[in-house]
Amino acid sequence: MATKPLLLSFAFCFLLAFHGCLASQRYRTTQEQGECQIDRLDALEPTNRIQCEAGLVESWDQNHDMFRCTGVAMVRHTIEPNGLLLPSFTNSPQLIYIVEGEGIQGAVIPGCPETFQSSQQSQFGRQFGQGGQMRGGEGRRFPDEHQKIRRFRQGDIIALPTGVAHWVYNDGNRPIIAVILLDVTNSENQLDLNPRRFFLAGNPQNEHEQGGQRWQGRQGSSQRQRRFQPFGRGEEGQQGGQCKNIFCGFDARLLAEAFNVDLETVRRLQNENDNRNNIVRVEGGLQVVRPPRELGGRRWEEEREGEREGYGGRGRRGRYDMNGLEETLCTMRLRENIGNPSRADVYTQQAGHISTLNSNNLPILYWLQLSAERGRLHRDAIMVPHYNLNCHSVVYAIRGSARIQVVNDEGQTVFDEELREGQLVVVPQNFAVVKRAENEEFEWVSFKTNDNAMVSPLAGRTSVLRALPDEVVANAYRVSRDDAKRLKYNRRETTVFTSRRGGGSFSERRAEA
Amino acid sequence: MATKPLLLSFAFCFLLAFHGCLASQRYRTTQEQGECQIDRLDALEPTNRIQCEAGLVESWDQNHDMFRCTGVAMVRHTIEPNGLLLPSFTNSPQLIYIVEGEGIQGAVIPGCPETFQSSQQSQFGRQFGQGGQMRGGEGRRFPDEHQKIRRFRQGDIIALPTGVAHWVYNDGNRPIIAVILLDVTNSENQLDLNPRRFFLAGNPQNEHEQGGQRWQGRQGSSQRQRRFQPFGRGEEGQQGGQCKNIFCGFDARLLAEAFNVDLETVRRLQNENDNRNNIVRVEGGLQVVRPPRELGGRRWEEEREGEREGYGGRGRRGRYDMNGLEETLCTMRLRENIGNPSRADVYTQQAGHISTLNSNNLPILYWLQLSAERGRLHRDAIMVPHYNLNCHSVVYAIRGSARIQVVNDEGQTVFDEELREGQLVVVPQNFAVVKRAENEEFEWVSFKTNDNAMVSPLAGRTSVLRALPDEVVANAYRVSRDDAKRLKYNRRETTVFTSRRGGGSFSERRAEA
Amino acid sequence: MATKPLLLSFAFCFLLAFHGCLASQRYRTTQEQGECQIDRLDALEPTNRIQCEAGLVESWDQNHDMFRCTGVAMVRHTIEPNGLLLPSFTNSPQLIYIVEGEGIQGAVIPGCPETFQSSQQSQFGRQFGQGGQMRGGEGRRFPDEHQKIRRFRQGDIIALPTGVAHWVYNDGNRPIIAVILLDVTNSENQLDLNPRRFFLAGNPQNEHEQGGQRWQGRQGSSQRQRRFQPFGRGEEGQQGGQCKNIFCGFDARLLAEAFNVDLETVRRLQNENDNRNNIVRVEGGLQVVRPPRELGGRRWEEEREGEREGYGGRGRRGRYDMNGLEETLCTMRLRENIGNPSRADVYTQQAGHISTLNSNNLPILYWLQLSAERGRLHRDAIMVPHYNLNCHSVVYAIRGSARIQVVNDEGQTVFDEELREGQLVVVPQNFAVVKRAENEEFEWVSFKTNDNAMVSPLAGRTSVLRALPDEVVANAYRVSRDDAKRLKYNRRETTVFTSRRGGGSFSERRAEA
Repeated sequence: MATKPLLLSFAFCFLLAFHGCLASQRYRTTQEQGECQIDRLDALEPTNRIQCEAGLVESWDQNHDMFRCTGVAMVRHTIEPNGLLLPSFTNSPQLIYIVEGEGIQGAVIPGCPETFQSSQQSQFGRQFGQGGQMRGGEGRRFPDEHQKIRRFRQGDIIALPTGVAHWVYNDGNRPIIAVILLDVTNSENQLDLNPRRFFLAGNPQNEHEQGGQRWQGRQGSSQRQRRFQPFGRGEEGQQGGQCKNIFCGFDARLLAEAFNVDLETVRRLQNENDNRNNIVRVEGGLQVVRPPRELGGRRWEEEREGEREGYGGRGRRGRYDMNGLEETLCTMRLRENIGNPSRADVYTQQAGHISTLNSNNLPILYWLQLSAERGRLHRDAIMVPHYNLNCHSVVYAIRGSARIQVVNDEGQTVFDEELREGQLVVVPQNFAVVKRAENEEFEWVSFKTNDNAMVSPLAGRTSVLRALPDEVVANAYRVSRDDAKRLKYNRRETTVFTSRRGGGSFSERRAEA
Repeated sequence: MATKPLLLSFAFCFLLAFHGCLASQRYRTTQEQGECQIDRLDALEPTNRIQCEAGLVESWDQNHDMFRCTGVAMVRHTIEPNGLLLPSFTNSPQLIYIVEGEGIQGAVIPGCPETFQSSQQSQFGRQFGQGGQMRGGEGRRFPDEHQKIRRFRQGDIIALPTGVAHWVYNDGNRPIIAVILLDVTNSENQLDLNPRRFFLAGNPQNEHEQGGQRWQGRQGSSQRQRRFQPFGRGEEGQQGGQCKNIFCGFDARLLAEAFNVDLETVRRLQNENDNRNNIVRVEGGLQVVRPPRELGGRRWEEEREGEREGYGGRGRRGRYDMNGLEETLCTMRLRENIGNPSRADVYTQQAGHISTLNSNNLPILYWLQLSAERGRLHRDAIMVPHYNLNCHSVVYAIRGSARIQVVNDEGQTVFDEELREGQLVVVPQNFAVVKRAENEEFEWVSFKTNDNAMVSPLAGRTSVLRALPDEVVANAYRVSRDDAKRLKYNRRETTVFTSRRGGGSFSERRAEA
Repeated sequence: MATKPLLLSFAFCFLLAFHGCLASQRYRTTQEQGECQIDRLDALEPTNRIQCEAGLVESWDQNHDMFRCTGVAMVRHTIEPNGLLLPSFTNSPQLIYIVEGEGIQGAVIPGCPETFQSSQQSQFGRQFGQGGQMRGGEGRRFPDEHQKIRRFRQGDIIALPTGVAHWVYNDGNRPIIAVILLDVTNSENQLDLNPRRFFLAGNPQNEHEQGGQRWQGRQGSSQRQRRFQPFGRGEEGQQGGQCKNIFCGFDARLLAEAFNVDLETVRRLQNENDNRNNIVRVEGGLQVVRPPRELGGRRWEEEREGEREGYGGRGRRGRYDMNGLEETLCTMRLRENIGNPSRADVYTQQAGHISTLNSNNLPILYWLQLSAERGRLHRDAIMVPHYNLNCHSVVYAIRGSARIQVVNDEGQTVFDEELREGQLVVVPQNFAVVKRAENEEFEWVSFKTNDNAMVSPLAGRTSVLRALPDEVVANAYRVSRDDAKRLKYNRRETTVFTSRRGGGSFSERRAEA
C-alpha cells in the first residue's frame, strides 16, 4: 500500500527540489555598480548568418544589451531535407522550438546504453528518407546499435541539458526551422557568459562570432598561443584555424591510439578541409535503426514517449550515475508538443489561445530551469497587460505580427513596435507588457527563464486589480467606487480577448453577478 | 498508516530542498578581481527621504560599500494613521519588520481567488479606522470581493516574494514604522543589482534614487528614449517624467480596451498630476471586507493564520500553479511575531533575550532565503563574540544603543562604534562581532541572508573554544592547561550575559562539575 | 512496513535536493562582456610559501587566469610530526586530499555537543604522539571534553563546509602533505571571490597574499583604518598589523568580560608576538581524548565512521538546528578514502585504475557541491579523451608525470605539457582532455566543482561516438561505414587502456559480437 504514495513522494520531491535552485543570478553585467540599463528594447532579426551545405545557421547579436543583460542567446537553424545537423553540445541548457518541419534527433547521454539495435539481417536496414535501397555491403552483416532516437515535428519543444551532444536529421520533405534559446546564465554553465558550442565533427564556424569580434580577440593573441605548439604533432598536425571541432586540438597519434585506428582515419575525425559547415547533406538519406513509423495505423510519433519517467526523482538521481545504465534518465522525455491548439491552457473561440509548457508537463525542465509559452491572437485580439514575476521572456514571432508595448519600473515605455515574423524581443523580469494583433493573426512562442514561469495579469478576470478591495482601488487612483468596480470587473475575460467587441459593460456584469 | 509519515516526508523534502539553493552569489562586485573591500563599516541612517501625503519613505544609500558588497538594500516606511501605502512590487524578496504600530496588509498572489467577500447587505460595510459611518451608496448594493487581508502589529516580520504586489493601511492611531530589507542578490531577482520598485498606482518617486544619481543617468539618455515616442498615444499621452507607475508607459487607448473602460478612467490609472507620492491619506478610513476583530473575546490577529500550510511541500508546488486556485499557496502564512519576549529562544532574566525566525517557524522563508533575529540586551549585558557561518546580517537598532565591534579575516577592527536607535550596520558573513549594551537597554532586529542562519559563538557554553581539546587550546594560545580550561569554561552562559556580575570563576565551575 | 522505504525516500530527497543547487555561476569575471578568455592553461606549482614552526603553507597564484576564471583556489599544507595546524575557517567549502601521512582532525560544528569525554582518572590521558608520559598535573584531576575527533590517513578526502573551524595534528612519524581546494565561487560563500581564511589562533600570514598584492592595497588604506582606533583598547591594544587572528580586532577588556578571564589571558588569545605562524610544534605530543587505536586487532580508523548518517536528509535539516544537539549532523561523515585501489570504480590490471568520490559515497558533498577523482595510469597507459559535462576539474599530480592535452570550444590546444609531481592544471567545464603516462607511472587526484561530476568519454566503450548511428558517424566524418564501425568499436576498453598493446582490431571485434 505504501509503494504508490511513495512514488508520488518521489515525484514531489523532484517537483520541489529544483525550483529556483538553478535559476541563478541573471542580468548582471560587469558595468559599474552591477547595473544593466535597459532603456530600450528592439525587435531584432538575426544578424549573423552561416551558410552550410544543407542549411543555414543564424544567430542574434549577443552584444545587444537585451541579450547581454538577460544572459540568454538565440540561434535559428534551417535544415534542408536530407540535411544532418552535426553533433555538438553547448555550455548551457538549450530549449528548441520547431517552427516548421519534422525529423529525428539523437541526444547523447553519457552512460546510457545503446538501446536501438538492428538484428542481424531482418530488422536492420529500415530506412529513413526518400531512398529505399540498402547501402553498403557491411551494413547487412554487422548490426548497427546506438542510443535512443527521438522523432519531432512542428510545434515541439525539445529540451537539452548542458554538455549533452545532439544531432538532428531532416527526413521530411520541407525545411526544418528551429529557434533555439541558450541560457548562458544558467547555473549549469560554470564557464563565462559567452555562448559556446563544442563541435564533435565538421569544421564549422562559431555561430556567435558576431562581426568576427570574439574571433579577432583570439587571433590577436596568437603569439601567445604559439607557445603551445604541440610537441608530438608534427606532420599529422592541422593548419592553424582550419580545423575547429574538439578532435582538432589533440595530437593525431594520441587520437589514433585512443581510437585504435590508423592515422588516415584520425585525419578524418579532424575533418581537414571540410567546408560543409555544421549542416551537411546526406546523399541517399540517412539509415538508422528505429521503430516503424506506423503503429496500427497511428504514426508512432503521436505516441507519448517515455511515460515511465513521469516522476522525475529517479531521473534526477540517475543523471549523475554516469557509470552504467540508469534506466530512468536514459528514457527521460526531452520533447513535448505545444503547437497543437487542442492542448491550449487558455482558449477563446474569438480571441485566440495560449499553451504553456513547464516542469509539470515536461519534468526535465526542472533541471534546465526553463519553460515555454505558445500563443495565437486573432485579428484585433489582445493579450492583457501583464508581467512575469520570476523570469525573463523571449518572445519570438512565428507568424503574422503584433504591436507590443513594454514598460519598465519607472513607467517608461521601453518598447512600442510591431513584432514581425522572424523577429524577437526580450521582455525582462517584472517589466509590464501588452500584445495586440492588429491587421493580421499573430502567433508566437515565448522562452522563459524559470521552469514555472508565473504571470501576473494587470487586467481581466485574474488581475491584480481584482485582488484589491474596492476602496484601495478608489483611493489609489482617486476614482469613485463605481469606477473602481468598473476597473475591477469590466473586463471579464482571462488573458486574451477581442478588443472591438468589448467585454460587456459594467451594468452587464451586474446582471451576471 | 503510511500516510502520516509521508506527509512528514513531504515536509522534510521541503525543508531540505531549498536550503542554500536560492542563496546565490552575493557580495560580488564588478571591481577588479571581483573584490569587495570592506575596510570599514558604518553606523548609517537613511540618507534619502521622500515626503508623502500621509507618511514618509526613507532609504539608505545604496552606493555605500556596505550595501553594495552584500547585495542588500534597506528602506524605512512611516505610515500615518489612515495612511495607505499604494500597491507596488519589487525585483527582490522583501523582509519587513514592524517597529511600531499596527494595520492591515494585502499581498496579491497571482491566481489566488478573491476569498474575502461581502454578502449583499449584511456583512459588507464592516469598517476599519476611527470613523464608523458607511460611505458611498453603491457600496451597499454590490458586494466587494478581494484576496485575503492580513492584520499585523508591532514586532511582526512580514515576508514577501519577488514580484508579489502588496499594500498596507494604517487603521491604528499611531504611526506605523516599518524597516524593510530588499535582498537584490537573491536568485529570485534576475534583473541587475539595483533595487527596483514597480508601482501599480500613484506617481511616486523612486526610493532608491540617491542624490538623483541613477535618475540623472537615465535623464541623460532621454534623447535615446525619445525614439520610443509611442505612436498611438497622441493626446492621451503623458508628459515625460511626470507619470511613473507601470500603467503610464502603456498607450491609453490600449489600456481602455484592456480594462473596457473609457479614456477618462484610464487617465486616472496613469495618475497624472498626482503629488501624493507612495503613501496617501484615506479620508474617513478605509472600508474593506474582513473578519471581525474580536473573536470570542480574543483579537483575531492573535490567531495563528494559515496553520494548514505548515508543511511547505504543497505550498512550494502550489506557488507555480498559477492557473486556478491553489489552496496551499494562497493561504500561506506570510507573517510571524518575534517581538514578544514570551517566544524567546534564548532568555536570561538578568541579561536579556533573543528570538530567531527561520524557515522552520515560517516556511515561506525557504523561498526567500532570508531569516531574522530579534534581541534585547539589558544595561551592561553582552551578546558573546560570534560569527555568522552562512550569511550576512543587517543589524537595525530599534531602541537604545550598543557598542558593537566587528572584526575581519585579518584581525582588523572594521567597526567599533555606538549603534543608536534608527541606525543600522551590516555585518558580513564570517566577520566576528560583539554587542554590548552600555548605558541603556538595547533592542535590535537582524535581517539575515539565509533562511537558516547559523551562528558560531566564540565564547560561552556553545563556543568554538569549548569544542576544542584542552591541549589544542593550550598549544594554540601558549597557555597552561589551567588557563585553557578557564578559556573554555569560565563563561558558562549561552549567547547573552551580564558583564559586571561575571560568570563565576573557574574554581566555582570546578565545584559545579 | 512503510518505514523502510520511507527512509529511502528521505535519502532520495536528499540525493535530489542539492544537485546543481549550490553550483552557482563560476568562471565569471569582471572583464568586458563577462568574458574570461582561457587561451592557455599552465602546469603550475605553488608560488607563495609561508614557513611555519612545524610545517609549510604553500598556495597557488590566485591571480592566474586559470583560477580566476574557474573561481577556485588551491593550497598545500606540509605538517611535520607533532605539528598542529591551528584552528581556522574559510569563506568557502574546502576539499582536502591527504597525499601523505596520517593524523587526527577536529571540525567544530556549532551546536554540536562535546561527545568525547575523559572519565575522571581512568580513560583520560590516553595519548597521541610518540611520548608516553602524562603531562600537567591538572589533567588528571579535571576531565577534558571536546567535539568528535576524526582520524585520517593517506588517500583520504576530507570535506569541510564554509565557516566550520578545523584543526589538524600530526601524530605520525612522517610529514602530512595535504592539497586543499577552496571553492570560492560556491554559493555558500556570500563574500567576494577572494579566498579568505579566518584564524582563531596564532598570528599567521594570509596564505593568499600573493606577492603582497592584496596586502599592499590594505596597507595603503591604513590612514582610513586609523579612524577606527578602538576607543577602549588603550594599553591592552595590539600594534597595527602585528596580530591577525579574529580575537585581535576586539577590545581586550571586552574579551576579558566575554571569557570571564583576566587581561593577561586575553592577551594570549590575541597572540602578540607569536611568530610560529599557522602550524606549531607540540612539545611532547598532543593529549586528546579518543577511542583506542586498536579495536580487536583492527585499527579503528579502518572502521567506517558515522554509518548512521547514511541518509543525508536528516543531516541536512540538522545542520541548521544550531540550537541544541542535532545528532545526525554532528555525527556526519566528513572523510572517505579514495587512495586504496581496492575501491576502484574502473580497474584494469594492465592500464591502471580510477576511483571516484561523489555525494553518493559521501553525502556531505551535496552541501559542498564538490567531488573528487583519484587515478593511476601505468606506463604508456592512456585515459581516453573526455570532457566534464557539468564542472571544472583541478588535476593535481601526486606522483610521476603525464602528458596532458586540453582542447577548447574552437578546437584549439590550450594545454599540451607534462604535468609533474606537485603541479596542477585546471581543466574548464566542457573542455576536452586526454592524459597519457609516458615514461613513468602517473598518479593524480582531481577536484571537481559539482557533487556528481559527469564525464563524457570521446572514445572507448562508453563514448559519444558509440552512441551515434553508424551513418551519422560516416556522414559527419566523411568515412565509410566500415571506418565508422572502427571508430565506434575498435577501442573496447572503458576509460583507461594501454596504448602499445592496442585494443584489438575491428575484425577481432566482429568475432566477439
